[in-house]
Formats: sequence, C-alpha cells, structure tokens
Amino acid sequence: MSNASPAVITFLSDYGYGDEFVGVCHGVIARRCPGASVIDITHGIPRHDVRLGALALRSALPYMPSGIHLAIVDPGVGAVGEDGRRAVALRTIEQARVLIGPDNGLLAAASELFGGVAEAVDIGRSPERLEPISATFHGRDIFAPVAGALADGAQLAEVGDPLAATDLRELPLPTAHRDGEWLRAHVLHADHFGNLILDATQVQISEIGLRLGGQVEIELAGATHTARYASTFADVPAHKLLLYEDAQQMMALAVNRGSAERLLDAGSDCELSLRRSGT
Amino acid sequence: MSNASPAVITFLSDYGYGDEFVGVCHGVIARRCPGASVIDITHGIPRHDVRLGALALRSALPYMPSGIHLAIVDPGVGAVGEDGRRAVALRTIEQARVLIGPDNGLLAAASELFGGVAEAVDIGRSPERLEPISATFHGRDIFAPVAGALADGAQLAEVGDPLAATDLRELPLPTAHRDGEWLRAHVLHADHFGNLILDATQVQISEIGLRLGGQVEIELAGATHTARYASTFADVPAHKLLLYEDAQQMMALAVNRGSAERLLDAGSDCELSLRRSGT
Amino acid sequence: MSNASPAVITFLSDYGYGDEFVGVCHGVIARRCPGASVIDITHGIPRHDVRLGALALRSALPYMPSGIHLAIVDPGVGAVGEDGRRAVALRTIEQARVLIGPDNGLLAAASELFGGVAEAVDIGRSPERLEPISATFHGRDIFAPVAGALADGAQLAEVGDPLAATDLRELPLPTAHRDGEWLRAHVLHADHFGNLILDATQVQISEIGLRLGGQVEIELAGATHTARYASTFADVPAHKLLLYEDAQQMMALAVNRGSAERLLDAGSDCELSLRRSGT
Repeated sequence: MSNASPAVITFLSDYGYGDEFVGVCHGVIARRCPGASVIDITHGIPRHDVRLGALALRSALPYMPSGIHLAIVDPGVGAVGEDGRRAVALRTIEQARVLIGPDNGLLAAASELFGGVAEAVDIGRSPERLEPISATFHGRDIFAPVAGALADGAQLAEVGDPLAATDLRELPLPTAHRDGEWLRAHVLHADHFGNLILDATQVQISEIGLRLGGQVEIELAGATHTARYASTFADVPAHKLLLYEDAQQMMALAVNRGSAERLLDAGSDCELSLRRSGT
Repeated sequence: MSNASPAVITFLSDYGYGDEFVGVCHGVIARRCPGASVIDITHGIPRHDVRLGALALRSALPYMPSGIHLAIVDPGVGAVGEDGRRAVALRTIEQARVLIGPDNGLLAAASELFGGVAEAVDIGRSPERLEPISATFHGRDIFAPVAGALADGAQLAEVGDPLAATDLRELPLPTAHRDGEWLRAHVLHADHFGNLILDATQVQISEIGLRLGGQVEIELAGATHTARYASTFADVPAHKLLLYEDAQQMMALAVNRGSAERLLDAGSDCELSLRRSGT
Repeated sequence: MSNASPAVITFLSDYGYGDEFVGVCHGVIARRCPGASVIDITHGIPRHDVRLGALALRSALPYMPSGIHLAIVDPGVGAVGEDGRRAVALRTIEQARVLIGPDNGLLAAASELFGGVAEAVDIGRSPERLEPISATFHGRDIFAPVAGALADGAQLAEVGDPLAATDLRELPLPTAHRDGEWLRAHVLHADHFGNLILDATQVQISEIGLRLGGQVEIELAGATHTARYASTFADVPAHKLLLYEDAQQMMALAVNRGSAERLLDAGSDCELSLRRSGT
C-alpha cells in the first residue's frame, strides 16, 4: 500500500524448530509483503510460557529496529466465548512500535517499556486474515498476514476493530520485596546457560547493604548457599556461584563455567531470600 | 543470467541446527545468486524421514511465494548404481513451482498438489555443481548451487539432463479405509506439540457417522480411548483427548494442554481404529 | 559510511536457539547497517567449545561470500586483566576476509586458510560499542555493532586499536602421526549425524598403505574394530563402519544409516590407532 520500503518485522514464538510452523509464517509474510525483512528473535520459548515470552520480548525490543514486532505464545488459541483471548495489534506511545500477538499478557511488558499503548485494534476478524481460519494456527491465518500488511504500510485501523488500551490484558509478575535485612525474591526464568534471572533490581540489592565484591547469603528451599556479588563470571573461580547484574539490567545468579540452575536445583517461580553474608 | 530480481528460494531439510550444513548451503546460494532471499521452512525434519519431509513440504508450499523450493532429506546420498537415487529439479504443471531435491519421494506429495510434473531434469551432473563433488554433502555441491542458478533465472534445461516425469519416484503413504462402522487409520506423524496427524479425511470421518461435538471411540494397541470430535483444543477440558481437523485439513488427535503422543503412546505408522461411541 | 551495498555478514556462535541472544545480535546489526544481509552459519556449537567453533568456521568460510565473518564462542567473556581475552577484528591476506570475534583461537584456523592475518585491531574499546557494555553479552555490545559498522563500509582502523598479528592467540589442535604401520589419530569432533571427524589427512592414510576399498583395523580404548575404507556411506552395508574422506576433505569414521559415535562410544579428543587390516 505504501511506496516506502517495507518496515522490518521481528518475530518471536514458541513454535520451536522441529516443524514447519515458523517457515510457514515467513512464507505468508513474504506473499503479503514481498521484500519485507524478518528478524527471528527466537522460536525456542518453552511451549505456552507466556511470561518467558514476554520477558524475552522486552529484553530484545530495545535492540531491534523500530518496526513491526510479531510475537506468538498462545495457549488459548482457538478458544471462544469467555475463555477466548483476543488477537490484537497495538502501537506504543514512544517510538510508535507496532506489536502484534495474542492478548494474553505476552505484549504487556514490552508495551510498557515503550510508554504504554497509544492505539490498539482487535484483529480476530481482520480483512487481512486467511480464510478458512484454522482453529489452531492463528500465526499463519491471522498474525502473519496482519504483520505483512502493516509492514507494507497499512494502518492499524485498516487491519482490525478499535479496542480500548485499558481492555488489554496485563502480565502478572512476581515482585521482590525487602523484609528487614532480607530481600525476598523469585526466579523469573532460567536461561540457556543455566543462569537464574531474578525479579530483583540493583537498587533493591543495594538497599540490603550489598556492595560489589561482597558476599551474599542465599536461602532456597531450606538450603543455604553463599555467592559473591560480582560484575562478571570470571570474578569468581570456576564452578563458584555469583550474583550479578545481567545484560538486561536484571539481577541474576550464575555459576562460572557451570549452571546455577543445576547447582541450586531451582527454576521459574522459585522463591529465594538474599542478605549480606555475616562473615 | 536474468535482469529480474531473483526468485524466492524456500529450503527444508533434515540437516538440523547443530552443524554448519544449513549455513553452508545458504552461503553457496548467496555466492551463486547474490541478493536471493531464502526462507527456511524447517531443518528439523527427523534425520532420514523422507515421508515426514514430504508431508511438511506439502503443508508449507501453498503458503510460500511461488519460486524455487529446495528440499533435502537424503538417506541415499552418495549411493551409486542400482541403489543410487537421482538428484532432480522439476517444474509443476500448476503455478510453475520449481522443486529441487533427491528423487526419493520427498518431492512427490508437493508436486501432486500443484497438478503434477510438467518438466524434470536430472541434476546429478549439472554444469552448476561444485567440483570436487563430495560423496556425502550434495546439498552443498549439487542442490544449493542449482537452486541459486534457477533463482538467478536459469532454465531447467540449462541445469540438468531431461528426465521423463513418469520416471520420478512416488511416495508410499498409508491410507485410511472404512471397515463397517470402523475407520482403520494410521498416524502419519507426531508434531512438535505431540499432536498425532492421521491419514484420514473429514469425509471419511463423516462416513462413519461422526458429527462435530460427538464422542469417538479409538482402539489402539489393544487399549480403548474416548475422544470428542471438536473444532478446537479449548472445546474439551484440559488434559482431555480430542479429534479435530488440523490447520492442514487433516484429521488429528490432540490433548488440550497436553500431548496425544504421550497419552496414547503412539507414533508414526501406528494403526488405530475409530468409530462413533455407543454411549 | 559507504554508498556501496552492505557487505554480507556471516554469523556463527554457541548461543543456541532457546534464548533471544542470536536475534538480538541480528537486531543490533540491522540498526547499525540497515539492509545488511546476514547468513547464520550455525548457532548450535556446543557451549564454550572454541575448537569445534573454529573447525566449523574453517569448514564453512570457503563456501561463504567474501565479507564480514562474525564468530562468537567466548568462555572468557567479561574476564579482565591476565585472564582477559581481547575482542578483535582482522583482515586476512587472501581474499581480504574480515573476521570478528574473541581472541581465543576461534578465528585462527579460518584465518590460516586465507593466508594468515594482514591487519588486526583490538575492538574492546571500539567507538562502535554499545554503552553501557555488559559483562556477559559482548555479542550484543561489541561484536555485532562492529560487524554492522564494517558491513557498512567502516575500515578496521576506525573500529579498533592496532594490534600485531603475531599477538593473536593460536588454536591448539591434536595432530595425527605415523608410528610404524600404525597411524595414531584423534577425534576432532562428532557431528550431528554421529560421524567422527579425525585429525588425519588422506595423505597420512595412504602412507600406512590403505587403499580405497581395503579394510582398516581400528584400536580404540582397548577394543578393536574393522572398517572399510570407502568413498561413501552406501559402499558398506547398513549399520557397518566405514572410513572415508568427508565433505571438508578430512578423514572420518561413520556408520551407514547409523552413528559411529554410538558404535565406538567415542567423542572429541579420543585417541585411536589405524592400520591396514591383515586379512
């Protein structure tokens, strides 16, 4: 619809690499908007893990060209009525990023990062959709063709029905909080390398008196561990635990040349408590 | 060879993601046809599973831009003489899709979908091949350079020797059939999500009296299961079995928020029988 | 910086497919050099396996368009002082290939293949780097932006500080050697298909009297195996062992329609001895 070059599309999903699902979405985009360039953020989000998809999207988007951001982690695909989830496209207030996906919280953390939602549309009955719509593959039949149309210059109002931004679903996330000398925190997720990403910020860490180079005591499932608060893996000996601020400015636990996930036997949503080590 | 923009190339294989094989084929294409755009359908086809590769290719191609369709699942690579398989490129009667791959049935189901084969060539000794040809990596040495040449505008007759379409190998597939009140069917494959794709069509399902919303009895390996014939996962409670028409218009078994593959302990080629449930 | 089209970037890493790391690097490149085309060689190098990364890079690069070759396998990321590794970019003597990565041997085998290093720079404090630099994700903060800048036409001297080529780290590799009628060799790595790649060349194999079609005796961990020296898998019956020259001109062991890795229970760095079979 536009004479300009197509916008860049980024694409994140839980479709995995074993089937043709990701490739088919690429094909649908290429048919709707020849010449569109697509950057795959990852398709290795664990199946149906909306929260991890939302966190990965929030981590990645600041490093992506401003454009069309397609994200699909969709356990409720095909549900109707009360259980139904909307399919949506939205534009953020800052940078006018366009996000597309199921309205189940997946887009919430990233939208917030760009100042919230300026405009949203329900694309469940988009004129861009492929007919017949399957019950199980909305990536192909709704999300990808809408992404292609938007990259091609279509406006939000052309691809869906208006929707109040306040009607969009939020993403429930655990929150670390201070409890005297302790910080009660949670594991948000374990990454590919076995690093445990926490819901704690550097500010909260300094509020309990922790300083770079100091020791931190960690209680988890009845066991106590000691870690060094360090700036990088190599600040501790091999196979030792460290607390650090990760590349996404979140506090995390890692083992130098090892796996904190295995050492602590911990995963998503585990509660743990941290305090400055007495010794 | 042509002044037009290069044709889109799609690429499916069983090369996996752990080695450099896929990337090397991309490199060879980029050297032969700079600017060619390549869509990876998937490289996660289980090793040497020609049938699953053929089914994935047939599912994906209608959603791909018409162009050059490279597919490599090639257990017979390097064999010569009687056991040898040809390397081929062909053009379909409808839409003039160009398919490239080993002549072992991999291209058969997709070719049929586009009306059959209008022209075929044997590319085993293509002038486009890279010398010396390795015995084990024809993707790099034969298939990818030929794909690049065809995307660049070369004609089939320029990249290989003429071959009668009737000489191409077919793909043996199981076939569901009616047996009184029973439908005897087979699992064609289990997808990434544990859904079991059957060789049955919606027509066959209605012939045994099944209607949407009804119950179906399933016999498999001596055990009996009950499923609902539903249009989507969310039509049944979590962890319950359903029979549905999948996004590729094939009948399939799934478990809502679970895995039919695990629940039924079933995989490719398993026989199962379905009938309308008595109760 | 340049009016010419961007150079092609190739990208190899051990980041895996489960996280957003690869996608984020693509995003950074696209922001720095819109329109750059990136070929993913593989991101499935086993974590921290610098040697395997170096071998895969050497295998792949001759098939890649000459351009910017980004490679990241970086167990020492974030280390400082004595343990620190440099981040480097270099240009090879032949073909002026530009390689970017950690200076830990990863780039060494590929550089040598193109005649060695003509010019090198330390990019640890590159003006192209993203601030604040994280301690753990130099792919995003250093390597990818420098790759984008170089693809965009920047010169090496603009993205880093001069470095003597002789200061670059080498890659220690095992070396096969003759010992009377025996050839003492090592497994360099096991590929996706379970083929065992050796450090032996075809010349060394012929020096111990082996001829194509002949039998070879293999001693490994106290067990003796017999293989045929063949040109391709199909030259031996299914499930039988063969010795062959692989697609990268290295000697390798494989099992036709099986896995030599499993049959021999062997992996990287295993020592084995080969000689002409007496019978």
